[in-house]
Amino acid sequence: MGLDSTVKKPHDRLSAHLAGDMARVNTLIRERMASEHAPRIPEVTAHLVEAGGKRLRPLLTLAAARMCGYDGPYHIHLAATVEFIHTATLLHDDVVDESRQRRGRPTANLLWDNKSSVLVGDYLFSRSFQLMVETGSLRVLDILANASATIAEGEVLQLTAAQDLRTDEAIYLKVIRGKTAALFSAATEVGGVIAGAPEDQVRALHTYGDALGIAFQMVDDILDYGGATEVIGKNVGDDFRERKLTLPVIKAVAKATPSEREFWRRVIEKGDQQDGDLEQAMALMDRHGTIASARTDAMDWASRAKAALEALPPHPLRAMLSDLADYVVSRVS
Amino acid sequence: MGLDSTVKKPHDRLSAHLAGDMARVNTLIRERMASEHAPRIPEVTAHLVEAGGKRLRPLLTLAAARMCGYDGPYHIHLAATVEFIHTATLLHDDVVDESRQRRGRPTANLLWDNKSSVLVGDYLFSRSFQLMVETGSLRVLDILANASATIAEGEVLQLTAAQDLRTDEAIYLKVIRGKTAALFSAATEVGGVIAGAPEDQVRALHTYGDALGIAFQMVDDILDYGGATEVIGKNVGDDFRERKLTLPVIKAVAKATPSEREFWRRVIEKGDQQDGDLEQAMALMDRHGTIASARTDAMDWASRAKAALEALPPHPLRAMLSDLADYVVSRVS
Repeated sequence: MGLDSTVKKPHDRLSAHLAGDMARVNTLIRERMASEHAPRIPEVTAHLVEAGGKRLRPLLTLAAARMCGYDGPYHIHLAATVEFIHTATLLHDDVVDESRQRRGRPTANLLWDNKSSVLVGDYLFSRSFQLMVETGSLRVLDILANASATIAEGEVLQLTAAQDLRTDEAIYLKVIRGKTAALFSAATEVGGVIAGAPEDQVRALHTYGDALGIAFQMVDDILDYGGATEVIGKNVGDDFRERKLTLPVIKAVAKATPSEREFWRRVIEKGDQQDGDLEQAMALMDRHGTIASARTDAMDWASRAKAALEALPPHPLRAMLSDLADYVVSRVS
Repeated sequence: MGLDSTVKKPHDRLSAHLAGDMARVNTLIRERMASEHAPRIPEVTAHLVEAGGKRLRPLLTLAAARMCGYDGPYHIHLAATVEFIHTATLLHDDVVDESRQRRGRPTANLLWDNKSSVLVGDYLFSRSFQLMVETGSLRVLDILANASATIAEGEVLQLTAAQDLRTDEAIYLKVIRGKTAALFSAATEVGGVIAGAPEDQVRALHTYGDALGIAFQMVDDILDYGGATEVIGKNVGDDFRERKLTLPVIKAVAKATPSEREFWRRVIEKGDQQDGDLEQAMALMDRHGTIASARTDAMDWASRAKAALEALPPHPLRAMLSDLADYVVSRVS
């Protein structure tokens, strides 16, 4: 991690470096969220968009495009596109997860209803689609269409893999590639494509986004079991209570003794959870060192992300993206 | 209506004329529905796709393209695209409407769960997006992106307009343009665009699809109050029970006496419905002649659809599309 990262988090340095672009992205987002006919739409989306997500995905697109020397207008459209896709998936996820809180505020499905979450999510998807068509780049459309399919497939796979102890690390990787990494890698890749970067740089940007997204989700899943120095508004054990098979549990199931396996079958497959089960689960993960092992995996993906950046020319933004990969895993190290 | 329409319905004549193309569309649909990673996806979609919808929208695309002399491969992709978008909206609608039956079979949200309906709908949207990118036509992408936004906006508008007696005919028209006509007009328009038809023909195809879709939805809404010679698997009064403001009710509310207005306020706005209320509602619609008036509106839109076809060169498919417009309203005349 660079020395100046002690002064500011890499995410904040990216935001500061790209503040002008980001202001244009926010203006475009507000414009395109509006609906002449259906005032419910900006109500629901403003609730989410203004709750101030980290805007990480649009920053990735802007950084990739600027780093590759782009000075046209369309990185703004693409940054808004990825934020719209992200927000749409959050709205649909909250219906799927029956969530009640997101970013410390009640979810849209709770404030309004599932109907609004489904339909406004669809609206944001279609708005993102209009934005990307405006770039006039078929290649960008192809990348984002494929990313959308991977996201949806990953979400369905997660649904069917949940509560199934046969879920292994390979399936887990497919799920998190879908639910998280596919949009990260599309975000960075389209930045390079719109800038007309050479093929090897476009590939490197894709690899960076993919590896960063995987590390990011692994860390998120580790933090759910409290392996954190700095926890960000998540309750320990949410995934456990929802019987989600994430990396620390999958590793513990793989190493389980017969009686431990019975425990996992009861709490995850049957969903018969009692007081003390979360503590017991964490003791089993501790015994087999699965939090530490998952942390090693996450750090490995962060290293791959950083290594991919070496194909790109030196640039202050490249250094920030490299620090960002370190920062993502620093939350669990 | 042409004489041979007494032999076969226009929809069946279109299917027969386009049987070769339609077989290719069905093959493509089956291929693209598949998911290597998530077997739940083809389960859910096969359930819907094989329930044998009328395939009306893909037939419109094929007919438009062939009528304009197209002999490339991409009308197949576009026909599959519009069917995927249609199926995705059905999956999401069933979540929104909490439906229990569709095409005479239990809905996917009942057989599986709301989660699967939301996520598999998203998957089909993204698959449709991939299919249209393959055509390589930015204009086609633009038309379908705009149609998607209009569909989603119409659905949200319908949600907020439901149970609100201030909903007037102008709002109703926006809602049905969104929920039905936008995909009809996009289906016919992209057929003309992919065939490279002259601008006036492309415009005419759009106008035809728009007017046909509006007539189609008006008829559907009239049939919900039983104004039918031939009712197709719908229960009389479903819209009434769901407190939807459709054309016959909107017209009755506009003509209501103060005491009738109290009735509508109770059953639609407050949702306080008792035995005999549906009969009372139908008696009020009868007194003000609103079913007959809605039928006249539908026939007017069917006439506009037919008139639009005159901008296109004579063709057996043109005659079938004209007969189709007559047939759509014949269900209530």
